[in-house]
Amino acid sequence: MKLWGGRFSKGAAKLLDEFNASIMFDKELYIEDIEGSIAHSQMLAEQGIITQDEADKIKEGLLKIKKEIENDEFIWDISDEDLHMAIEKRLIELIGDTGKKLHTARSRNDQVAVDFRRWSLKRNLEIAQKIKELIETFVNIAKEHKNTLLPGMTHLQHAQPISFAYHMLAYANMFKRDYERFIESYKRNNKNPLGCAALAGTPHPIDRNKTTKALGFDEPTVNCLDTVSDRDFALELLFNISMLMMHASRISEELIIWSTSEFGFITLSDEYSTGSSIMPQKKNPDVPELIRGKTGRVYGNLVALLTVMKGLPLAYNKDTQEDKEGVFDSVKTALISVTILNEALKTMTVNKDKMYAACKKGHLTATDLADYLVNKGIPFREAHHITGRAVALAEEKGVDLSDLSIDELKSIDERIGDDVDLSLENSMNSRKSLGATAPERVEEQIRYFENFLKENND
Amino acid sequence: MKLWGGRFSKGAAKLLDEFNASIMFDKELYIEDIEGSIAHSQMLAEQGIITQDEADKIKEGLLKIKKEIENDEFIWDISDEDLHMAIEKRLIELIGDTGKKLHTARSRNDQVAVDFRRWSLKRNLEIAQKIKELIETFVNIAKEHKNTLLPGMTHLQHAQPISFAYHMLAYANMFKRDYERFIESYKRNNKNPLGCAALAGTPHPIDRNKTTKALGFDEPTVNCLDTVSDRDFALELLFNISMLMMHASRISEELIIWSTSEFGFITLSDEYSTGSSIMPQKKNPDVPELIRGKTGRVYGNLVALLTVMKGLPLAYNKDTQEDKEGVFDSVKTALISVTILNEALKTMTVNKDKMYAACKKGHLTATDLADYLVNKGIPFREAHHITGRAVALAEEKGVDLSDLSIDELKSIDERIGDDVDLSLENSMNSRKSLGATAPERVEEQIRYFENFLKENND
Amino acid sequence: MKLWGGRFSKGAAKLLDEFNASIMFDKELYIEDIEGSIAHSQMLAEQGIITQDEADKIKEGLLKIKKEIENDEFIWDISDEDLHMAIEKRLIELIGDTGKKLHTARSRNDQVAVDFRRWSLKRNLEIAQKIKELIETFVNIAKEHKNTLLPGMTHLQHAQPISFAYHMLAYANMFKRDYERFIESYKRNNKNPLGCAALAGTPHPIDRNKTTKALGFDEPTVNCLDTVSDRDFALELLFNISMLMMHASRISEELIIWSTSEFGFITLSDEYSTGSSIMPQKKNPDVPELIRGKTGRVYGNLVALLTVMKGLPLAYNKDTQEDKEGVFDSVKTALISVTILNEALKTMTVNKDKMYAACKKGHLTATDLADYLVNKGIPFREAHHITGRAVALAEEKGVDLSDLSIDELKSIDERIGDDVDLSLENSMNSRKSLGATAPERVEEQIRYFENFLKENND
Amino acid sequence: MKLWGGRFSKGAAKLLDEFNASIMFDKELYIEDIEGSIAHSQMLAEQGIITQDEADKIKEGLLKIKKEIENDEFIWDISDEDLHMAIEKRLIELIGDTGKKLHTARSRNDQVAVDFRRWSLKRNLEIAQKIKELIETFVNIAKEHKNTLLPGMTHLQHAQPISFAYHMLAYANMFKRDYERFIESYKRNNKNPLGCAALAGTPHPIDRNKTTKALGFDEPTVNCLDTVSDRDFALELLFNISMLMMHASRISEELIIWSTSEFGFITLSDEYSTGSSIMPQKKNPDVPELIRGKTGRVYGNLVALLTVMKGLPLAYNKDTQEDKEGVFDSVKTALISVTILNEALKTMTVNKDKMYAACKKGHLTATDLADYLVNKGIPFREAHHITGRAVALAEEKGVDLSDLSIDELKSIDERIGDDVDLSLENSMNSRKSLGATAPERVEEQIRYFENFLKENND
Repeated sequence: MKLWGGRFSKGAAKLLDEFNASIMFDKELYIEDIEGSIAHSQMLAEQGIITQDEADKIKEGLLKIKKEIENDEFIWDISDEDLHMAIEKRLIELIGDTGKKLHTARSRNDQVAVDFRRWSLKRNLEIAQKIKELIETFVNIAKEHKNTLLPGMTHLQHAQPISFAYHMLAYANMFKRDYERFIESYKRNNKNPLGCAALAGTPHPIDRNKTTKALGFDEPTVNCLDTVSDRDFALELLFNISMLMMHASRISEELIIWSTSEFGFITLSDEYSTGSSIMPQKKNPDVPELIRGKTGRVYGNLVALLTVMKGLPLAYNKDTQEDKEGVFDSVKTALISVTILNEALKTMTVNKDKMYAACKKGHLTATDLADYLVNKGIPFREAHHITGRAVALAEEKGVDLSDLSIDELKSIDERIGDDVDLSLENSMNSRKSLGATAPERVEEQIRYFENFLKENND
Repeated sequence: MKLWGGRFSKGAAKLLDEFNASIMFDKELYIEDIEGSIAHSQMLAEQGIITQDEADKIKEGLLKIKKEIENDEFIWDISDEDLHMAIEKRLIELIGDTGKKLHTARSRNDQVAVDFRRWSLKRNLEIAQKIKELIETFVNIAKEHKNTLLPGMTHLQHAQPISFAYHMLAYANMFKRDYERFIESYKRNNKNPLGCAALAGTPHPIDRNKTTKALGFDEPTVNCLDTVSDRDFALELLFNISMLMMHASRISEELIIWSTSEFGFITLSDEYSTGSSIMPQKKNPDVPELIRGKTGRVYGNLVALLTVMKGLPLAYNKDTQEDKEGVFDSVKTALISVTILNEALKTMTVNKDKMYAACKKGHLTATDLADYLVNKGIPFREAHHITGRAVALAEEKGVDLSDLSIDELKSIDERIGDDVDLSLENSMNSRKSLGATAPERVEEQIRYFENFLKENND
Repeated sequence: MKLWGGRFSKGAAKLLDEFNASIMFDKELYIEDIEGSIAHSQMLAEQGIITQDEADKIKEGLLKIKKEIENDEFIWDISDEDLHMAIEKRLIELIGDTGKKLHTARSRNDQVAVDFRRWSLKRNLEIAQKIKELIETFVNIAKEHKNTLLPGMTHLQHAQPISFAYHMLAYANMFKRDYERFIESYKRNNKNPLGCAALAGTPHPIDRNKTTKALGFDEPTVNCLDTVSDRDFALELLFNISMLMMHASRISEELIIWSTSEFGFITLSDEYSTGSSIMPQKKNPDVPELIRGKTGRVYGNLVALLTVMKGLPLAYNKDTQEDKEGVFDSVKTALISVTILNEALKTMTVNKDKMYAACKKGHLTATDLADYLVNKGIPFREAHHITGRAVALAEEKGVDLSDLSIDELKSIDERIGDDVDLSLENSMNSRKSLGATAPERVEEQIRYFENFLKENND
Repeated sequence: MKLWGGRFSKGAAKLLDEFNASIMFDKELYIEDIEGSIAHSQMLAEQGIITQDEADKIKEGLLKIKKEIENDEFIWDISDEDLHMAIEKRLIELIGDTGKKLHTARSRNDQVAVDFRRWSLKRNLEIAQKIKELIETFVNIAKEHKNTLLPGMTHLQHAQPISFAYHMLAYANMFKRDYERFIESYKRNNKNPLGCAALAGTPHPIDRNKTTKALGFDEPTVNCLDTVSDRDFALELLFNISMLMMHASRISEELIIWSTSEFGFITLSDEYSTGSSIMPQKKNPDVPELIRGKTGRVYGNLVALLTVMKGLPLAYNKDTQEDKEGVFDSVKTALISVTILNEALKTMTVNKDKMYAACKKGHLTATDLADYLVNKGIPFREAHHITGRAVALAEEKGVDLSDLSIDELKSIDERIGDDVDLSLENSMNSRKSLGATAPERVEEQIRYFENFLKENND
């Protein structure tokens, strides 16, 4: 019989059980549920609402249940509806009537809220940790490739020569923003829902500051009606994961393109590639493809919960039960994707020669010519047009702009002097503005990220 | 060792196994995979590519595997990567080298395509069937409530009196459109991918028409390159389910509002409601709330796959592996939601008195007065203003418009005669235009849906 | 003063006017609104509800308004709230009290429904027409490239040689599915909402079949309550456009990748490319990039309306006013994107040499070797492994598999005979299964699409 | 002729102009563009790259253009492609060749990035300001309704008596989280992109710290390659608006339901309601309906940009041009929605009597009885069952639980004593836990929000 079944004349239909139950997925929260219940009952004892002896028995029972779950001995029964009911029922079996006192001054509403929020907050930190490891990998690759030339692209067209280090640090910075979002969301949401009861608080003389401290929150939430239906922390997590995976999809796209036989800029290690069932020569970049694909599911999970929450009146509505599966899925996806991406990056081979050869195609130093002309006092837009003509000449001759002789360049415009240097190396080295690709600036950026990693060392 | 592992010098990292594998979810397709393989090998035999004896052995092996799966004796091993590999490996274990011939003239690409497409097509029909049952319920309720008055609403404000039957038939029609979408999507996509191989077809002398017939398709697909990366059938299914659940969320919203103590228009049966852990008097409309909430996840699944497919080059990319879980989830959600909604509707109590009482609030027959005036030759916009004044008078007197005496009405405008009838019943009965709420029109609609159900009886 | 303002004691706040008004965007519907009003008033006259003379005056007034709008002389005033009010107000100005009779037996609810539905239905046909033109382009390109070899790819890795014609026809088939969806959605939704009035029909003796015929609908809708809040036709349109743009994003991705200097498979014409403000040598594939990017907005518009409709009670709610802008935007996006994509394809240069050279990389005929071995009676999985070893040998020797001598091949496995032919041409020509890449099959497909285009010629 | 057209042999097709141009919408950024250009040219002068005189002429020209735009004298021509080109072209017209120097050491990539980022950052602050005004309204309403009883609901069912003040403060807290998100996003993103040039920085001796200071940024961005393709600030804005509107949709749903004749808890003022074209008595809650509906479009805009950014390789791609319209639309929607919601709340009438009457239905003090029993030492779960029986008795007698006599209550369980008080007022007043509904706690919350408003007073 259901714990809440007193009023109902008929048993709930079996079909409804299946539909209604969340126990198949919310068991993920068992640690948070048990820790929350222990903190709650200890507080009840300290406030004289139950005896310390009762609190001790409850704690003992709950720790036993924890062990049962971890030893796979706990029986998950769909008719218990949810994790919270299942644990409470088992507690009563184990310790008798004292177990019935656990739910004093508490409701499933604040219980669910505290369990799910703590679970989510922990995952913020866990994902943030994985991101730092990924950033470290970008930094390590960058250290080795400060002088590795790569065609910097816009529109997937060769634009200007940059270093591979610089390219990797662009991603370091992108993922650093992700890190910051997870940490800030953690801080903003690290507030204790416990003690809010169903929606209006409780007449029992509880002390929410005690459970706040016991559970590692910064402070209790401010308004209980809001608290029990607040899922902002979950939506922020889903959004921050969407951003993370969006960024991961971008480097993945690049890894896939760089792995083509046409580009050949990198080679993924065998460990992070797979073969084909019918084409034995294929070596497929499955890892980045899957990461790119998994962007879809995390976007979907975000849309799902935004949809659920739209137009919900206060306070708790059953719709909100739909909050968890998507979050669990997105968190799992984020953790494994970042981990695997990190491994794939660590083990890939960088084909410098191919990158360098590519730099020789597409007149990558055209902007350098334009900038050279500007330095000679020619207005930018005019310099731009002169450069266009130089490129046209190079195309006509079938060579790269950097291969035109000085005389040929002069034939375009007499203001071009002997001091012009359109080599790839000069192009990269000369871009010394703050945040640019010159090796000294890249070193500066490396130090910046190393400091960041050091300062955020837990 | 992986079946495709010949070329690889190192074993794939364990982490990648987990990331890469789809076997945890694609086992859902085992029936389609086995049926597809049987049809394929039988065709190979008929075309002389393998012997009939080999085909028979393969069939026998596959049927044994089917039984193993259904008896829960089959070992699902993540290192087998996917269902297809797992079954093929087991087949080779069971029947030896002959098993290695099954994959002749086939690739995982067309194998996955045919399995997933057939699974999806079957679900189209299954969901369509459930929808018909739901429509039948709306029709049955309508038959009993042709004269049950309900305030027809716009903006959730009382507008005009209608019958509850008429309201139910609005939903019958909505869900009929869903039915049609599922059936049309089934027909449009019932084409056979098998024989497309990896992407370019095969040099083996296969006959795709034979597998087409054996597997119940209408025709083979037209271009193999397109076929192996075509997931339109899955996206249509996800969209059609989104529409279905959107409609279900609308009736759910109404059931929730109608179940409030303020409205009280219906009472959900105890079987399809639940109680509260702390408020014993509560009877919560969990079923419609969950259905409304589950709209979120099916929208999310649609967004997820649309995102996956965006910008994918031809042909197969690993991203596409992300196509299945969302479809499985949406299909399961649709099937259980429609089933439970149907049960909840069948077992609800319609509180006619409350509905009728509500009709007496809000001057529901104001439009009737306007229409009456129009019939007297007064232009509509002027009639509208006169009616506005009559309503103002009723509000002033604290009565419903229908309770104003004829003299009072005449005091508003002398063109109002003794023949005016602003009763609720007259209002409903007089709306006899095609598709309207008058009982005779509702009966017509009931016959329409009964015919629809009869004609689409499988 | 507002036409509906009779009851209100204060004027609506100015801010609300802006918020509430739809006139800035729904003027898009003016043709449908005027045609609908003419059909409605003519029917009212035929039914004796107004006189023929009144109907004629109304028609004359409305046609004058149409001209005013088209000559940009009509004054769009936000305080008129919407198109319908603005036109009606102007009609009354123009023809006096007779204009007030137009709205007899009609409500803004069915008026909006009929206008927006007809607008949308027309766009279905318009987009379908554009798609046919696009398919024609694919067919025309295919006709010229039946023997142009291209590396067929999976995972963006070379897989098997195919013809460029075959690749183009994959897209022809993809877009043919889009065509079918627009046409079927048109047919399914071509039903007349007019005459449904606010939600319950009308007591006036109207004939909905007359307006149905006059406006080109197939039949009247079945239930008025459903009709006034039914936006399925709009959601289908948004989804079908999402699918269309998803497909367009796929060919766009390929055009972008093919335009890189690394691939170089195609060159977009100057007309459909743009330059860079700072890098004069750049030639950017803006057109396919924008098309790929615009996939986002049409997905967004779909999500937007799905979100709006979720959980809306019957019948009309103001939320539904949010239905139009997204549809207008998606339709416009679809029409221009398909048109421009078509032009970009027509004017691109196909670089056969680059495509052919690419085919010589990646051991594209490996599957052919495997198939050859299978024909010699070797089980597929074993053939697969032998092929893997042959590829390894080629890699070791730094040549393409097709360049290995027969003796070298024999050294791998003695069952390889003198009859082995691993040339690219042989590979393509031998894939003769239905729907495959062999020239004869491609010709068959060309005829298939030509027939399709002929049969669907309007 | 296009400024970048030097290389192109043919003029771009007219159709492409329309497709490619962003000038129709990016003119929204004119202030940021002009301010950015002034800061850039002043920095160029200070660094000796151009003369101070040139910088002065540029500034003068730009300010003239600003005035032209504001006086509606500026000619927006689609063939100028975008705002940036249009202004630069006009500048050259106005001041001649000096104007051509403005673009020195700059690219459209960093120019767009700085304009759009600054525009977005300003809107963060503007929206945050509107949110504070909304919170102030909730606080003001709360101050007047600390003792106004309202049925606190879960599942839209009466649960426990709370004060209307408490309900309003739940929203104050919800929107306070929105406020914090906008402010944190502002801070995290207030970094200067200017000086990043196309993607690799520039060889000119620029000083990014100078433009950083001039434009009010906190610091320059770290890596230029990342910077030019970073749209995180825009996505955060779209997400934060989605959250804001999601919250707004929740209070809107409540306002709509409370405005029904069944609930009648509030009456929206005439200014913020509208009438019906056919039903003169209707007073429709258009404002909250539209706000609820507009949640769709802001969700859609978020999905749109997430989709655009998925899988984009570094650095700038034309797809990114799709970033602005959705942001402009969401910002506009947020600003007007919050403003109007605020006005609607300020002017609504709170119908205390209706709220109080509703509290007498549904046995709202059932939990109080359970809590009373727990205080008597009865385990919670048992107390729960006893309460269930008391409710059943009240239902049987057709009265509210609070109307049962003490004797009747004692008949349920003898442990119920004379000190039991199940009145609504006692229920509310006794819920004194932190964050609960008792008036003293509500006062505490009011002070909390007043402090928040004071501390965040700009």
